[in-house]
Amino acid sequence: MLQPVIPIVAGWMRENPGTLSLGQGVAYFDPPPEIHQSIQTALGSSHLHAYGPYDGHEKLIELIYQKLIHENRIQVHHSHVVVTAGANMAFSHAIHAIADPGDEIILPAPYYFNHHMALSQAGLRPVTVPTRPDYQLDLAAIEQAITPRTRAIVTVSPNNPTGAVYPEQDLRSISDLCRKYLLTHISDEAYEYFAWHPNQHFSPASIPDAQTRTISIFSLSKSYGMAGWRMGYMLVPDSLKDSMRKIQDTQLICPPVISQMAAAAALERGRAWPDHFRSTIHHSQKAIQKVLNDWPQLCSGSNPQGAFYFLVRFHLHMSPEDLVKQWIENFRIAVLPASTFGATGCTVRLSYGAIRPDTLAEVIHRLTSALESSANHPLVGIPSSTSPGPSTAP
Amino acid sequence: MLQPVIPIVAGWMRENPGTLSLGQGVAYFDPPPEIHQSIQTALGSSHLHAYGPYDGHEKLIELIYQKLIHENRIQVHHSHVVVTAGANMAFSHAIHAIADPGDEIILPAPYYFNHHMALSQAGLRPVTVPTRPDYQLDLAAIEQAITPRTRAIVTVSPNNPTGAVYPEQDLRSISDLCRKYLLTHISDEAYEYFAWHPNQHFSPASIPDAQTRTISIFSLSKSYGMAGWRMGYMLVPDSLKDSMRKIQDTQLICPPVISQMAAAAALERGRAWPDHFRSTIHHSQKAIQKVLNDWPQLCSGSNPQGAFYFLVRFHLHMSPEDLVKQWIENFRIAVLPASTFGATGCTVRLSYGAIRPDTLAEVIHRLTSALESSANHPLVGIPSSTSPGPSTAP
Repeated sequence: MLQPVIPIVAGWMRENPGTLSLGQGVAYFDPPPEIHQSIQTALGSSHLHAYGPYDGHEKLIELIYQKLIHENRIQVHHSHVVVTAGANMAFSHAIHAIADPGDEIILPAPYYFNHHMALSQAGLRPVTVPTRPDYQLDLAAIEQAITPRTRAIVTVSPNNPTGAVYPEQDLRSISDLCRKYLLTHISDEAYEYFAWHPNQHFSPASIPDAQTRTISIFSLSKSYGMAGWRMGYMLVPDSLKDSMRKIQDTQLICPPVISQMAAAAALERGRAWPDHFRSTIHHSQKAIQKVLNDWPQLCSGSNPQGAFYFLVRFHLHMSPEDLVKQWIENFRIAVLPASTFGATGCTVRLSYGAIRPDTLAEVIHRLTSALESSANHPLVGIPSSTSPGPSTAP
Repeated sequence: MLQPVIPIVAGWMRENPGTLSLGQGVAYFDPPPEIHQSIQTALGSSHLHAYGPYDGHEKLIELIYQKLIHENRIQVHHSHVVVTAGANMAFSHAIHAIADPGDEIILPAPYYFNHHMALSQAGLRPVTVPTRPDYQLDLAAIEQAITPRTRAIVTVSPNNPTGAVYPEQDLRSISDLCRKYLLTHISDEAYEYFAWHPNQHFSPASIPDAQTRTISIFSLSKSYGMAGWRMGYMLVPDSLKDSMRKIQDTQLICPPVISQMAAAAALERGRAWPDHFRSTIHHSQKAIQKVLNDWPQLCSGSNPQGAFYFLVRFHLHMSPEDLVKQWIENFRIAVLPASTFGATGCTVRLSYGAIRPDTLAEVIHRLTSALESSANHPLVGIPSSTSPGPSTAP
């Protein structure tokens, strides 16, 4: 199994102080200041120190229900919320609840690295199905990949690592496939607030009757700049309630109480908070897009519709790891090799969510220098490999 | 698979307001007040909101190393610390790191319920080996239970749910078995500060050369009254570093940052904090022991050497679940059915860590009434079943 790439690239960055990171997928903004007051209040309470309910504290759960109803248009019924220590844990709980070792889970590729790792660690078989050249879902290929061992189809929209936002119609088609073949639709919506106009985020659990077959996963890490607080949650069918309780009790007992109090304060402030910062992130996206467009012979970038990511393919005969290391050492700018996401060739993921308004100019300067240098690479223009077919990995 | 019993008993308690809980294993005291100041300071820092190192923040890790060296007498080498969101997660990480589906893990029985659930969820086979009548390890039976598929022997000392403290010599014997058969010794030491004189807590990783085969698990939930903060940690052999990084990245990414800051403040205060409250908990233990001793025909209680627990066996022809429900409804006092810990017969676990000095008298009063009533049960004095042999469960 591959090593998580982020700590490795972080090591290269430590060896090259001053490197600007377009690596890890994080938002540049902090959580709303209201969480400070909520923590002050919490510090006076003994409840802060005791175990809470396995699924989360009542106040937070109620705020989440209201958010799901009003923002995601999910008329919550036959399903319930479980708060976890981050959305990765929600995904891990989900696959443990619905599948047994040897079962197959369909992952459109390129995929979110941690999903792939979680499946392998759970003894499940990730069945990767390449997306189309524009990184949109290949619905026919997904249907063909379904076997009697398939238990779920995973979608991540807006997508990490490609930046694609799947149209409502395609997500409805996935939900239909899940109904037809009695599968679960695992819908990871961690980037729900980061869809670039005119692309719209759509929650499949809002489809009438879909809640009994949908697990919807959300995160406060990106939405509210709260990565360090480890707060995610999911909406799961009532039929999974007993399983979820067992899994949560075994792994976590209950979500960290202080983080739940901060999360409640953030949700009370509401999506006005991420909305306030979104235009800055979109501005960074457009500035980087403009630079990438200057080098059509060197690279083809995705045209992101959402999330924080460009998936950039370089027409170079070198490994993406070598390119990343070179850029860090020579230009003090870090991206991630996209091999880790199941992308082929010399492809890297460039994350722009962490760029602050006052560092954008320097990012553009360094990126331009790096691209100029790579364009002078002797092998530029020779595509490094072709796209593979569907694959299954243990 | 059994449901976690704590939420079920919690439901009965909600239906019977005013019930005193001798159920969940928690300490009655709060964390040291120093954590408030550390949180105040943390709230001014942006680091609070960002992902931290997968294994924990440097300051906390260093405090843990100092604690392991000076308190646990572990001359740390060839091993390193990983901080997790509670000790349950540490156990789950550990078994994922060392075993593959179908492998066997030896659990002395009665066992900690969550260990058994974690093994089942991971697709591993818990091989339960009954302890001796005094709940001490049956070393010969453990050695006999080892097969080519065995990967680890788990010990919990001081023990949940029996209250046994294993003598140093027995833990050395387990460590020797692990060396002889190339197994891992998973040593859960969550109750390290709660061994009643003259019993002494012993850390197997302090045995020269044992660190390469020992995973030592610790928790701040009991030691520092910080259950709601979800802070545990483990010392693992360096050979497992890559596996642990992958597992932690997949499940949690990093431990909650604010909880780590609170944990660092607690460890800076040090074990003087739990030591201050220990005499109160020991006093509760002695008072309850005295009451139980008054009913030798009705029940035989363990004679706890540590942790917060009595495992009390009633000579009654009824299920422990019925007894627990009856006591809650009629006497407003809650214990846990010990069937959930793999104990046979009408056995319950009585947890005394949560008893505050000002509620002890009421606890003793209700417990006495409940015992009087149960003693009048028509079938008192008839043992309800005999002890089973070693078993394996999928």
